[in-house]
Amino acid sequence: MGQQPITFLRQVMALCTYPNLLDSPSFPEDAKKRARRILQACGGNSLGSYSASQGVNCIREDVAAYITRRDGGVPADPDNIYLTTGASDGISTTLKILVSGGGKSRTGVMIPIPQYPLYSAVISELDAVQVNYYLDEENCWALNVNELRRALREAKDHCDPKVLCIINPGNPTGQVQSRKCIEDVIHFAWEEKLFLLADEVYQDNVYSPDCRFHSFKKVLYEMGPEYSNNVELASFHSTSKGYMGECGYRGGYMEVINLHPEIKGQLVKLLSVRLCPPVSGQAAMDIVVNPPVPGEESFEQFIREKESVLGNLAKKAKLTEDLFNQVPGIHCNPLQGAMYAFPRIFIPAKAVEEAQAHKMAPDMFYCMKLLEETGICVVPGSGFGQREGTYHFRMTILPPMEKLKTVLQKVKDFHMQFLEKYA
Amino acid sequence: MGQQPITFLRQVMALCTYPNLLDSPSFPEDAKKRARRILQACGGNSLGSYSASQGVNCIREDVAAYITRRDGGVPADPDNIYLTTGASDGISTTLKILVSGGGKSRTGVMIPIPQYPLYSAVISELDAVQVNYYLDEENCWALNVNELRRALREAKDHCDPKVLCIINPGNPTGQVQSRKCIEDVIHFAWEEKLFLLADEVYQDNVYSPDCRFHSFKKVLYEMGPEYSNNVELASFHSTSKGYMGECGYRGGYMEVINLHPEIKGQLVKLLSVRLCPPVSGQAAMDIVVNPPVPGEESFEQFIREKESVLGNLAKKAKLTEDLFNQVPGIHCNPLQGAMYAFPRIFIPAKAVEEAQAHKMAPDMFYCMKLLEETGICVVPGSGFGQREGTYHFRMTILPPMEKLKTVLQKVKDFHMQFLEKYA
Repeated sequence: MGQQPITFLRQVMALCTYPNLLDSPSFPEDAKKRARRILQACGGNSLGSYSASQGVNCIREDVAAYITRRDGGVPADPDNIYLTTGASDGISTTLKILVSGGGKSRTGVMIPIPQYPLYSAVISELDAVQVNYYLDEENCWALNVNELRRALREAKDHCDPKVLCIINPGNPTGQVQSRKCIEDVIHFAWEEKLFLLADEVYQDNVYSPDCRFHSFKKVLYEMGPEYSNNVELASFHSTSKGYMGECGYRGGYMEVINLHPEIKGQLVKLLSVRLCPPVSGQAAMDIVVNPPVPGEESFEQFIREKESVLGNLAKKAKLTEDLFNQVPGIHCNPLQGAMYAFPRIFIPAKAVEEAQAHKMAPDMFYCMKLLEETGICVVPGSGFGQREGTYHFRMTILPPMEKLKTVLQKVKDFHMQFLEKYA
Repeated sequence: MGQQPITFLRQVMALCTYPNLLDSPSFPEDAKKRARRILQACGGNSLGSYSASQGVNCIREDVAAYITRRDGGVPADPDNIYLTTGASDGISTTLKILVSGGGKSRTGVMIPIPQYPLYSAVISELDAVQVNYYLDEENCWALNVNELRRALREAKDHCDPKVLCIINPGNPTGQVQSRKCIEDVIHFAWEEKLFLLADEVYQDNVYSPDCRFHSFKKVLYEMGPEYSNNVELASFHSTSKGYMGECGYRGGYMEVINLHPEIKGQLVKLLSVRLCPPVSGQAAMDIVVNPPVPGEESFEQFIREKESVLGNLAKKAKLTEDLFNQVPGIHCNPLQGAMYAFPRIFIPAKAVEEAQAHKMAPDMFYCMKLLEETGICVVPGSGFGQREGTYHFRMTILPPMEKLKTVLQKVKDFHMQFLEKYA
C-alpha cells in the first residue's frame, strides 16, 4: 500500500541480524545501542537462538515499561507479559486455554458483531459456542451494556459463557470506545465473572479529535482494587498495525492480569510445545515499545515518519467518511480509529433476488460485481457478521491519498450504476 | 553453544531487512541477488508485509527445486509446499487436520518411542490417541516393521489409527534409517492406509560414514506409481537444525503428497486464520534451500562454514559415543545423525528406591543429581518414553569440542560416584 517502514526499526533489525554492521559508521548510535541490548539478552547473542517460550526477558521488561508509560503509571509486571507470533497467535492460544477447561456444557465466547473473523474461526476450531453481541450502528458502532446483558442471558440457556471479547479500536467498525463504556464493560465482566479479552492492536490508530484510546488495563486499575484484584484480563498488541505496519515479522505481546497461577502454568506449557515466537518479531516488538526518545540521534526522523503515517491515515479516514456519505444509498459512520471503513450499503430488492438466484449473500454479490467491474477488492459484511437485512463492506484506508480518492470515486460510480441497474 | 551463524544467510537477511544496504559495497553481489529476488516476491518489496498463508511463491518454488535436486530428480510441485513457523507448527497443523476428521472412535497416531515430546503434546492437545511403537535399542534404534504391526493391531481395539509418524534421523535416538527400512515402512503405510508424517528436520545431520539420508518422498517415488499415487505423505524441514541452526527465525516448510484436494482446502483455511508464517523465517528457509553455488562469490566461504559445522558435529558424535561406552553402566548406540546422544544408563536398585521415595522417575532423580552436582543439564529418558525398566538421558553434542570433553568427563565421574554411592 506504499507505506514505508520506520527507518529506525529496520536499522535496529538489520544490526541484530548481521552484527558486523555494529562497526559500520552508516548506522546511528541509538540504533546500535538498542541492537546491542537486544542481542545481549538473546542466547549466544543471536536472533538465531531459541528464546524462552514466554519471550526474551529484556523485551518483556520493555513491554512492561511501555504499558506503564502508556497507562500513566499503572504498574505492569514483566512476568505477566507473553511475547507472541502476532496478536492472532496470542488470541487463539488464550482462547484455547480458557475453552479447554471442560465442564458439563460447552464454553461460550462473547464476540462483537461485526467481528474480525479470527474470533469465529478460533471458536469453531475449539468447538466452543459463539455468543454474538451486536454493536450499535445507529450510535457509531458503540458497545451497549444492555446488549451484552441480552446476549449473555440468551446464551446461558445453551452454553456456559466464560469469555467476553472486545475489539477496541474496532475492526472492521473503526469505533473507539469511550472511557465510560469501558467502565461499564468491566463492571459487567466483574458482575458476571467473565474473562475479558481486549484486542487493542489498533491502540495507536485513533483519528477523531474527540476520541482517545483508553486501555482496559488502565481503566480496570482506576476502578479500584475490587476490580483490579479480581477481573481476569488479557490484552493484546502487535507490530502489524499502528504506524509501523510490520505484519510480516509476526510480532506481538499479551499482558494477562489475575490469571490463576495454575492456568498460567498451563499457558507456558502450551506455548513451549511450539518452542518460542520468532525472535526477529520479538525484536521488532521491542523497538515499537522502546522507540527513540528526545535527545537521541534518531528521534526527529522517527517522529517525522510516525506522524506522517498517522497524519495521513487520519486525513484518509475523514476523506473516506465524507465521500461515502455523499453517495445516495451509502451510509458510513465516522472512522474514529483502526484502518477500515465499514459503510452500510443499500442493496435494491432486485439485486437481492438476483444474488439469491446465484446462491450468494447479497453483499457478496455486490462485492463480486464491484471487483469485476472496477478491479477493486473489498470484503462483504457477511464475512464479519451484521444485523439481518443490513449490508456492508469493509475497505481499508491504507492506499496512498491519490489512489484512495480514485478508489472512492470508482466505488461511487459503481454504486450509482448498481442502484440504477437494479432499481 | 558457540556455533556461528552462516555468514551468507545473515547477509541476505540483513539486505532483505534494510534494503538501503543493497547499495553498500561491503555485501557480496550473490547475496544482493538473492535478497532482490526475495524482496521482489514480497508485497511492497518488504519483509514487513503479510505473505500468502501458504508462503511466498518464489520461496516455495525454491523449496521445490531443492527437493528435486536432493531427491535426484524426483519432481516436486510448489503447490504442495507450505512454509511454516518452524517444523513444530507444520507438524501440529498437519496433525490437527488429520485428527479433526471425526468418526465414531478417536483417531490413533502412531509415534516412535523414544519420541520428541512435540508429538505426545500435540496428540494430547487434540484429544487423539497416542499409539506407541518401540524403536529397537539392541539394533541401533532401528525401526522394525513387525513392531509397527504389533502396535497397530493392539491399537485397533480402542481407536482408529490413521497416522504414522517417523522421525528420521531420529530425535532423541540419532539413528538414520536404511533405505530398506523406509521401503518397508512405506509398504506398511500403503497396506494399512496410514498417512505418513515424516519428520526429516535432521536431513543434513548424518555423521556415520555407513549411513545416508533417504527422504521418504524419494523412496516413495522409486517404489512406483502404485505407491507414489496413493500413499499420503507430509514431510517437514526447518531452518533450526542442519548446519545453519537458525531456530530463532522459526522457518520451515512441509511438502504434502496425495492429500485430497478438499483436505488441502481445509489446510489453507486453517493456516489463513493465523495469516502467514513469519516472512523473515521464510527468507531464512529460502537461503537454506538456495545456497551459493560453485562460481558464485560467496560459495567458498559458505562451503567452508557449512563443512566446519558438520565436520565438528561428526567428530563430537564419535567422541561422545566412544567416551560414554568407556563408562561402566552406560551404553550408547552410535550417533548416526541428528544432534543428541541418548545413552542407556544403569541405575542401581537402591537409587531406584530412593527416587521412588521422592516420587520421581529414577532417571529424573539421576538427572537432578547430575545437575546439582555438576551443573550439567540433560533430559531424562522418561520425557521421551523408553521401554519399562530401562533408563536413559538425552544430551546434546552441540557444545564446542573442548567443552564437550569436559562435560563428558564430568558425567563419567558423576556416574562412577553414583554407582558407588547406591551400590
